[in-house]
Amino acid sequence: MILKSILALMIQTEIQIRVRYGETDRMGYVYYGNYAQYFEVARVEALRELGVSYRKMEEDGIMLPVHTYSVKFIQPAFYDDLLTIRTRILKIAGTRIYFGFDSYNEKGELINTAEVSLVFVNAVTKKPCPPPDDLLLRLTN
Amino acid sequence: MILKSILALMIQTEIQIRVRYGETDRMGYVYYGNYAQYFEVARVEALRELGVSYRKMEEDGIMLPVHTYSVKFIQPAFYDDLLTIRTRILKIAGTRIYFGFDSYNEKGELINTAEVSLVFVNAVTKKPCPPPDDLLLRLTN
Amino acid sequence: MILKSILALMIQTEIQIRVRYGETDRMGYVYYGNYAQYFEVARVEALRELGVSYRKMEEDGIMLPVHTYSVKFIQPAFYDDLLTIRTRILKIAGTRIYFGFDSYNEKGELINTAEVSLVFVNAVTKKPCPPPDDLLLRLTN
Amino acid sequence: MILKSILALMIQTEIQIRVRYGETDRMGYVYYGNYAQYFEVARVEALRELGVSYRKMEEDGIMLPVHTYSVKFIQPAFYDDLLTIRTRILKIAGTRIYFGFDSYNEKGELINTAEVSLVFVNAVTKKPCPPPDDLLLRLTN
Repeated sequence: MILKSILALMIQTEIQIRVRYGETDRMGYVYYGNYAQYFEVARVEALRELGVSYRKMEEDGIMLPVHTYSVKFIQPAFYDDLLTIRTRILKIAGTRIYFGFDSYNEKGELINTAEVSLVFVNAVTKKPCPPPDDLLLRLTN
Repeated sequence: MILKSILALMIQTEIQIRVRYGETDRMGYVYYGNYAQYFEVARVEALRELGVSYRKMEEDGIMLPVHTYSVKFIQPAFYDDLLTIRTRILKIAGTRIYFGFDSYNEKGELINTAEVSLVFVNAVTKKPCPPPDDLLLRLTN
Repeated sequence: MILKSILALMIQTEIQIRVRYGETDRMGYVYYGNYAQYFEVARVEALRELGVSYRKMEEDGIMLPVHTYSVKFIQPAFYDDLLTIRTRILKIAGTRIYFGFDSYNEKGELINTAEVSLVFVNAVTKKPCPPPDDLLLRLTN
Repeated sequence: MILKSILALMIQTEIQIRVRYGETDRMGYVYYGNYAQYFEVARVEALRELGVSYRKMEEDGIMLPVHTYSVKFIQPAFYDDLLTIRTRILKIAGTRIYFGFDSYNEKGELINTAEVSLVFVNAVTKKPCPPPDDLLLRLTN
């Protein structure tokens, strides 16, 4: 399979996450650092919907550490809020995959947006590597 | 005191943080979401060095939620690593304050860089507000 | 309503929690400290099933900090495991409520057991207080 | 070296930990789940003072997962508190090591006590194993 240098995508999925007590801080807001976990859950579920198990990918020897992460907070989220996170797999370029996220509260208000890029890394050599064929096939079909 | 619309700054401080076991993930890396706490500790200590207590600022009715956060990972950090984080207070513009961070491992290698902007918010009205005079005085002297 | 000094209960509920990547540590196990959040989610959902919103209870001025917590680990849990947590509301005695938890992995194996006691605290006086009538009514009906 | 079945110890060390913002919850207290990390830091530093590196022990093929953990909360801790944690290595019995912890706030008030037992596990076989000789030597000298 020839890897196109850039594979532009627009695959969108949606998950819901209930804010845990321990994820709030003394302002009563979800602590800004905790959204990273939400987005991780969101992208893993996005892959699962495509039929790709991130866990299995790792067991097959490909890790996917985060390369860049940026988030813009528009409104806070609060304890027990049921958040909706919309995830887009934006593109695959070389050894990297790009995700976009929009989080909404129960009123349907956009509370933040984020982007994450991750690198496919060979677990043995610890070097960047192409995405697994299985993932590419599922993304393009 | 007249608040200049933009106060360009170059105040730099440095802290050291020892990576905790629970902060690593199954890759053996510090989980990408945990750096947010390191940068929070770094900026609080940067303010403390200037004589400003973030805790006291909150008790005086000014909260400082994060508005934007971005980080670029260059190398992973590992369990028990003693990281050095250099913090720069970049500027105050209107109701916002901007911090820059560079993290180094024990070999002195740059492992990531980050930026955070935060908004001064009146704890009662929940509206953005000017930074406290005390902070401005300490930043400009 | 007269509060019986001890209200023995056997109310059992069950939730499922998917292990997040950031909850594992470099052993590949769920970090021992992270189960506290799972048990917190489990007891909040146990109350929700009874028609009691913990969030609303707090908004009504009653906090519920943890008094004692103990856990015995039998087997580790791993990334992406779908855990089942069985929660029992054991009893209410004076100003305290007692929960018991059993966690199971996808094979149905018991992986840990835990107990948590919490104190009803008046949010204004910060003093222990009786449980809210609404909770008692729902527990005894 | 013959391993005594039970090695009673009374080795005591002390560390200080500054409460991070993200470790508080919306009650303004340190979230009960976060103390597990404090106690982990405390026992690793206790071992380091004896000249034992937990990191090196793992690299040498011995893991130390937690077997039991219990904590009793007496008072809450708050944001920015500088806590003192006194750690005692209580005993080594068979393949287990037992630690006790007392946490104090800046006023010197006892805020909680805890106990943790951990199992020495061979990283390859995943079976319990005797503690490393080096650790035993350092504990008994």
